[in-house]
Amino acid sequence: MPQSLSPSGSMPALPATVPVAVVGAGYAGLSAALSLRDEDVPVLVLEGSDRVGGRIWSRRTENGTLIDHGGQWVGPTQHRILAWAERFGCKTFPTWDTGDHLEAWHDGTVRRYRGSGPDEARGADGYAEATARIDELARRVEVSDPAAAAEAEAWDSETVHSFFERTVGCPDARRRLALAVQGVWAMEPREISLLHLLFYVAGAGGFAQLMDTRNAAQDARFHAGAQSPALAAADHLGAAVRLRCPVEAIDWSGESVRLTTTAGEVRAERVIVATPPPATAAIRFRPGLPTARARWLQRSVMGDVAKVHVVYPRPFWREDGLSGIASLYGEDAAGVVFDNSPPDGGAGVLVAFVYGDRLRRWSRGDDGERRACMLQTLTRLFGPAAAEPAEYVEKIWPHDPWVGGGYAANPAPGAWVAHGAAGWRAPCGPLHWAGTETSEVWNGYIDGAIRSGERAAREVLASLDQ
Amino acid sequence: MPQSLSPSGSMPALPATVPVAVVGAGYAGLSAALSLRDEDVPVLVLEGSDRVGGRIWSRRTENGTLIDHGGQWVGPTQHRILAWAERFGCKTFPTWDTGDHLEAWHDGTVRRYRGSGPDEARGADGYAEATARIDELARRVEVSDPAAAAEAEAWDSETVHSFFERTVGCPDARRRLALAVQGVWAMEPREISLLHLLFYVAGAGGFAQLMDTRNAAQDARFHAGAQSPALAAADHLGAAVRLRCPVEAIDWSGESVRLTTTAGEVRAERVIVATPPPATAAIRFRPGLPTARARWLQRSVMGDVAKVHVVYPRPFWREDGLSGIASLYGEDAAGVVFDNSPPDGGAGVLVAFVYGDRLRRWSRGDDGERRACMLQTLTRLFGPAAAEPAEYVEKIWPHDPWVGGGYAANPAPGAWVAHGAAGWRAPCGPLHWAGTETSEVWNGYIDGAIRSGERAAREVLASLDQ
Repeated sequence: MPQSLSPSGSMPALPATVPVAVVGAGYAGLSAALSLRDEDVPVLVLEGSDRVGGRIWSRRTENGTLIDHGGQWVGPTQHRILAWAERFGCKTFPTWDTGDHLEAWHDGTVRRYRGSGPDEARGADGYAEATARIDELARRVEVSDPAAAAEAEAWDSETVHSFFERTVGCPDARRRLALAVQGVWAMEPREISLLHLLFYVAGAGGFAQLMDTRNAAQDARFHAGAQSPALAAADHLGAAVRLRCPVEAIDWSGESVRLTTTAGEVRAERVIVATPPPATAAIRFRPGLPTARARWLQRSVMGDVAKVHVVYPRPFWREDGLSGIASLYGEDAAGVVFDNSPPDGGAGVLVAFVYGDRLRRWSRGDDGERRACMLQTLTRLFGPAAAEPAEYVEKIWPHDPWVGGGYAANPAPGAWVAHGAAGWRAPCGPLHWAGTETSEVWNGYIDGAIRSGERAAREVLASLDQ
Repeated sequence: MPQSLSPSGSMPALPATVPVAVVGAGYAGLSAALSLRDEDVPVLVLEGSDRVGGRIWSRRTENGTLIDHGGQWVGPTQHRILAWAERFGCKTFPTWDTGDHLEAWHDGTVRRYRGSGPDEARGADGYAEATARIDELARRVEVSDPAAAAEAEAWDSETVHSFFERTVGCPDARRRLALAVQGVWAMEPREISLLHLLFYVAGAGGFAQLMDTRNAAQDARFHAGAQSPALAAADHLGAAVRLRCPVEAIDWSGESVRLTTTAGEVRAERVIVATPPPATAAIRFRPGLPTARARWLQRSVMGDVAKVHVVYPRPFWREDGLSGIASLYGEDAAGVVFDNSPPDGGAGVLVAFVYGDRLRRWSRGDDGERRACMLQTLTRLFGPAAAEPAEYVEKIWPHDPWVGGGYAANPAPGAWVAHGAAGWRAPCGPLHWAGTETSEVWNGYIDGAIRSGERAAREVLASLDQ
């Protein structure tokens, strides 16, 4: 572990100047830094928190089970994170999906089924029709400039909720679609526009790529946790990564850019800001950012998600022929459950995702109430053995002081057509923008974060060459 | 003029402690301070800019004509601003609306008509039906808790654009409604939810109260400008108002609250933050604000408006029997034009409002292009005499470093139901919230700002009594 990553010990003073400063040591910032380092451009990464990885955070429970508090999966078309895994020797293993899945409905029924998507059961036809329509519309969106689509203004004027109300007749299909939106965006369908949904689907290669497990976004997990490639990249970057250095102000009025951190000042020729949009908006820029960029940031709001890991001595549900995968269309806090057990089967781990409105209701309860509520749901799904876990670990992302939500920020209705062209990620003089929210491909994912850092690094390299 | 309002001269140092600190010297902050002062509670108002009034700013042009860069009107049910006008002896005069009004349509036609609202002409029936429907729905919204309405979730899930698409068949009626939304909220119908529109209408006493001139929100103007009551209040508060003291951080972790300004630190028992939501979000709070409040602020985005004053030797349009009032439903930058001449007729002043998408298009042009574009529109409406003004003055509010938009911030779809109850204005420990965006009545107006300050002061007084 390089000195800069050590939780204790004194830190060397910040250099007075550096060619390129990167703000944020999530995957986007590390990717930008790695790209520049690979081209022998000196770089300094300033991270506010005491760790790298941002929304990706792998930890061991008290009993030693490795869990991912944040992003955890990798899919086969996520080529850039797979390239990192290759480069740093981080092995993956398939997500467990053997056995029957469960669906819990709002009327209290629990249905057991097999296979990857909804079959002929309640609402499945309407769901399939709607997702086919979404895929068809998404093909008309150019991911490099979503607002340029012929129907962009209409699509950005309507919430996804309204789109479903208008085009999907079957209430159960609408319930399926609402959970799909919660699962993919960690937001309610009322909070994002149809255009943003279409852009996001287009950048992932289709709705099924976002939703499915096998050969899609939920395909595999990392043996050493999804943070392990980030830790390896930080290790490679060494003392160039400075933790506990939150950037509070960026003055870009002069020849070079002046960054004010709580640990001192740095001057840089170029800056890549790779923090989530609300964190970027909280930096004091002098002069203020151009209106379109400021508005884009103001209209980009983090989703709301919590991950709850419940650890058992063994994955007992597998003995009942269950996969551990469940979708909950009712009032439960959990929206989706997965088997998150380690690959060696040394423990049985269920992970429950709590999204949007569910999270707001659930987090009104105290520690005991939240735990009881969650175990009640798991017991209903997987039987009495679920009631007494060995460990119970929550990560409520809206409460995270550095990230403030999850998985990503999504622009509110109207933001793409009003501010996207100039505000999404166009550089402002010496300031360049990274972060998964600026990616055309796999926006909102680790892969998109890495791509965004590489793109920002290319911009900087091109501008330094001039 | 008290010392604190003097643009030059040295400022006395900030006191070490004060019972109540108010952040922001717009109408809301001044109102809070005045209410506390009236109860003999010592107060300190910290304002970032070099003037009081916030979004209200009265100035003389180079030739001496008084204009209002920002909010300018007062209506007969705006009792609190009228009470200030009475208290400080600020006289008003009726908005000029004598003569025929003009409507410019997207097809190039210009129609001349008389009266307060649309008559039997194109789209008028559909407009009247829609506004009647809005008034009917608005009566079901309790302004103290809009999210409690039975249909709140559905209403907050749909943009106003979608509501019009769904319920208004006539395209010309939809054009009228779109301009009405732009005129009232300085936003496009796609940017706000139906619930927010209904809340706002309910708090104003009906759609006509927002739209009409006589006996409604546009009824009268101030002889000495709409800033004059604010200047008088600041004069009354004297050295308690400190200009050029932007509050950068608020630490509320201890017994008292520590405010860090660029001019030093102050400790206060209670703090009333009375800045626009995006400015509030830019303050570094330690600890961070509760999730609901943080999300509410993040989802509250300023509207986009510019005001353009065009000054002529005399109000020549009156000689043609024109009122100077025009509505533009096409592609012109101007959306609405009013006769803003001084009451003595010493000059002829037209004011043009540029909103939302129009503002984004128009502000891509340089100074000369913007002016030429505006004068071309006015010439088309009022004849060749409009082409050669004596003076031309723009105020583009999104570019204002302290306010960053106008008229007010409005929550994005979904924000009311998800975060309204806990995030709208509920105090957070010793922190209280003012600003027109927190008002139940005349939200977005000067009157709402004053009411919000009075309400926050009542909260503080009650909490200090305990």
